[in-house]
Amino acid sequence: MTQADLDRDLDALTAELDKGHVFHSWSAQAALKPLPVAGGLGTKVWDHSGRTYLDFSSQLVNVNIGHQHPAVIAAIKEQADKLATIGPATANLTRGEAAKRITALAPDGLDKVFFTNGGADAIENAIRMARLHTGRDKVISRYRSYHGNTGAAIVATGDWRRIPNEYARGHVHAFGPYLYRSEFWATTPEEECERALQHLRRVVECEGPASVAAILLETIPGTAGIMVPPPGYLAGVGALADEHGILLILDEVMAGFGRTGEWLALDGFDVKPDLITFAKGVNSGYVPVGGVIISNEVAATFDDRVFPGGLTYSGHPLAAASIVGALDAMQAEGIVDHARQIGAEVIGPGLAELADKHRVVGEVRGLGVFWAMELVADPATREPLPAALMGKAKAACVERGLLPFVVDNRIHVVPPCVVTADEVGEALATYDAVLTLLDGEIA
Amino acid sequence: MTQADLDRDLDALTAELDKGHVFHSWSAQAALKPLPVAGGLGTKVWDHSGRTYLDFSSQLVNVNIGHQHPAVIAAIKEQADKLATIGPATANLTRGEAAKRITALAPDGLDKVFFTNGGADAIENAIRMARLHTGRDKVISRYRSYHGNTGAAIVATGDWRRIPNEYARGHVHAFGPYLYRSEFWATTPEEECERALQHLRRVVECEGPASVAAILLETIPGTAGIMVPPPGYLAGVGALADEHGILLILDEVMAGFGRTGEWLALDGFDVKPDLITFAKGVNSGYVPVGGVIISNEVAATFDDRVFPGGLTYSGHPLAAASIVGALDAMQAEGIVDHARQIGAEVIGPGLAELADKHRVVGEVRGLGVFWAMELVADPATREPLPAALMGKAKAACVERGLLPFVVDNRIHVVPPCVVTADEVGEALATYDAVLTLLDGEIA
Repeated sequence: MTQADLDRDLDALTAELDKGHVFHSWSAQAALKPLPVAGGLGTKVWDHSGRTYLDFSSQLVNVNIGHQHPAVIAAIKEQADKLATIGPATANLTRGEAAKRITALAPDGLDKVFFTNGGADAIENAIRMARLHTGRDKVISRYRSYHGNTGAAIVATGDWRRIPNEYARGHVHAFGPYLYRSEFWATTPEEECERALQHLRRVVECEGPASVAAILLETIPGTAGIMVPPPGYLAGVGALADEHGILLILDEVMAGFGRTGEWLALDGFDVKPDLITFAKGVNSGYVPVGGVIISNEVAATFDDRVFPGGLTYSGHPLAAASIVGALDAMQAEGIVDHARQIGAEVIGPGLAELADKHRVVGEVRGLGVFWAMELVADPATREPLPAALMGKAKAACVERGLLPFVVDNRIHVVPPCVVTADEVGEALATYDAVLTLLDGEIA
Repeated sequence: MTQADLDRDLDALTAELDKGHVFHSWSAQAALKPLPVAGGLGTKVWDHSGRTYLDFSSQLVNVNIGHQHPAVIAAIKEQADKLATIGPATANLTRGEAAKRITALAPDGLDKVFFTNGGADAIENAIRMARLHTGRDKVISRYRSYHGNTGAAIVATGDWRRIPNEYARGHVHAFGPYLYRSEFWATTPEEECERALQHLRRVVECEGPASVAAILLETIPGTAGIMVPPPGYLAGVGALADEHGILLILDEVMAGFGRTGEWLALDGFDVKPDLITFAKGVNSGYVPVGGVIISNEVAATFDDRVFPGGLTYSGHPLAAASIVGALDAMQAEGIVDHARQIGAEVIGPGLAELADKHRVVGEVRGLGVFWAMELVADPATREPLPAALMGKAKAACVERGLLPFVVDNRIHVVPPCVVTADEVGEALATYDAVLTLLDGEIA
């Protein structure tokens, strides 16, 4: 057998073990044919046979620093040699170093980190803190949002995934600003902002402000469609929350740590939350981790009162090492600035050109390496492109060697922060070809 | 400065960063002075200054294979060099190899694994599967249990940690067998078993069997007190569940993967669950991971229907590599057999001797490396030893170089599976000294 045969066999073995023993997220299982991935570097991943793909999904929008960044791999291996795991009741230097770096990136007055295993349990614990700090039950989040898959997080979520999972109480949903599909009959960003704030205020008033523990928002809703809030919206939400002693939780799981071309997405807005949840970009998912950055006021609530939440792997040293490695490398290599620049100078203009050229593109929006192309069957009615055509678009991208991030009627353009102008050019050419196909389908 | 000064400085820096930036699980934060841990090997951990501790906690009862097992560290480093992270929508060979090994250890007919980040989200997803498979809402779990800290898992939990977190519906609690503190006025294991089954049957009948999705039990309740179920109990629960089309979820997060001297704790009983949750021992927590082992019947429910649950890090390659490394090493080195043997021949007899000698010991119970010493203020009334004295006991152990696992009025004797007879002897001597102190306090 040649090496090529062996490599093909490894892809076949991968598929066989997957089919036999692995149950996949958010899917019907029978028809799945997941792409085998054996390795990666930077913006590329490949299978065992050497077929290479340009990763414009960053997997689940988490590999911000790119695949297999050598500094992060080295940090993981070095910590593995020292101490892979230790319980949360101990103190650990690497954990402290990670917490120091994370809080240094947060607004003043948020000095502590509670580490979790991922984004969902970060949300769980932020909600827990808000409820215990305020002594109130309700949490207001927005329709068109995603906050994770566990009991409370999934009910805070504002998309279809909440519906089969609504077993928790105290969750209320409101509409947020989304001018392209305004719920407020608005026609300008200013109007959308003002009306979205008025709507949120009315929901708070009708629920009873004294019953509301927190307003929970993704700083920029991610999977729901990368809706950058209009200027003034987040500041307005912050003021509304302050007015009523409601905590503001900003979910930075997807938007944080470079994705928007800022360290935190909230840096682009005039807002100061009480709690910030994070995961994904903080270490690009090299080791599972998430957490909550906590204001000193909320943290003080638990100075002498037991915080009733915890996890076996809270503050895991291997995860902490990967955070230190990733944040230091992002700083040293100017990766966040690069993301801002390539978004403003290359991705944004390129997508605008595609929008001009293709009838199927309803809107493009975003910043940094965080963009959405909204595809429509009819530009006038803005009717979303049907699922079958979105499936075709996805397959057409993969065939052309591009891993896209497809959700509902949108293609999210979310490469690693380290993507080069050449790679963006390559991806734009692929999108161009695929959009041409779609134009034909809706003609 | 000498090396010793530098090492002491690192302990001080660790404490300073911890105090400044790390928020800890299940604690009031102000008075915490967590032990700094810099490294470990086997049953030992140490701080930067070289002070060494015998770890009879396995941290949170997760380091089954011992600290820093070289085969697991090597597996992590090798996978880190290949591919640290990849999304759950792909197929990955290491993930498939991990799933194959896990399902090979499960009863026949449970062939698929859904990977999560830890035990809590394993419970979340097992509950989700049970509700969707049966079309029913309620989940019955037991008082004196712990199932995790997220929205649904914490409400399934049957200890005090549930109370401040009860925001989910559909959870019902029943009493389980615990002869030392029987809720059924029983005086023999047979009577306790029979009455506990009758009680559970009455709860199912009163809740309405057709409304019950699942009965969720730790195979052996862990943190709640290591109550090994009497012969026939789990078989009886299985029969009751079958009778009413209720799924049986066995939580093996703490009890599984060697802890009891069996691969799965359920191997010691005549019971076949529909879903098995795991975490901790599967890879000794070297990388955060957990999961659900799924029966083919439940898995088939999601062949053509979307499973509404998922995680960014589901099937994480680094976690998968650590599972493969840990399970292969445990097999090759006979670590599970060793745990059974040392439990039966050394730990059990040693603890029985302490119980005979010390008035403060109410009961010892357990198997493998999974034992509880129940401490009482009065052996006749079985009144639990007060918290202040338990705190003294804990401090006295740590002073003597032993990390104990203390919960409520119990010391859990839960060293890594690789613990030697000499190390057990050392620990027994420490417990002996500490119990002598406590005898004096209650005299």
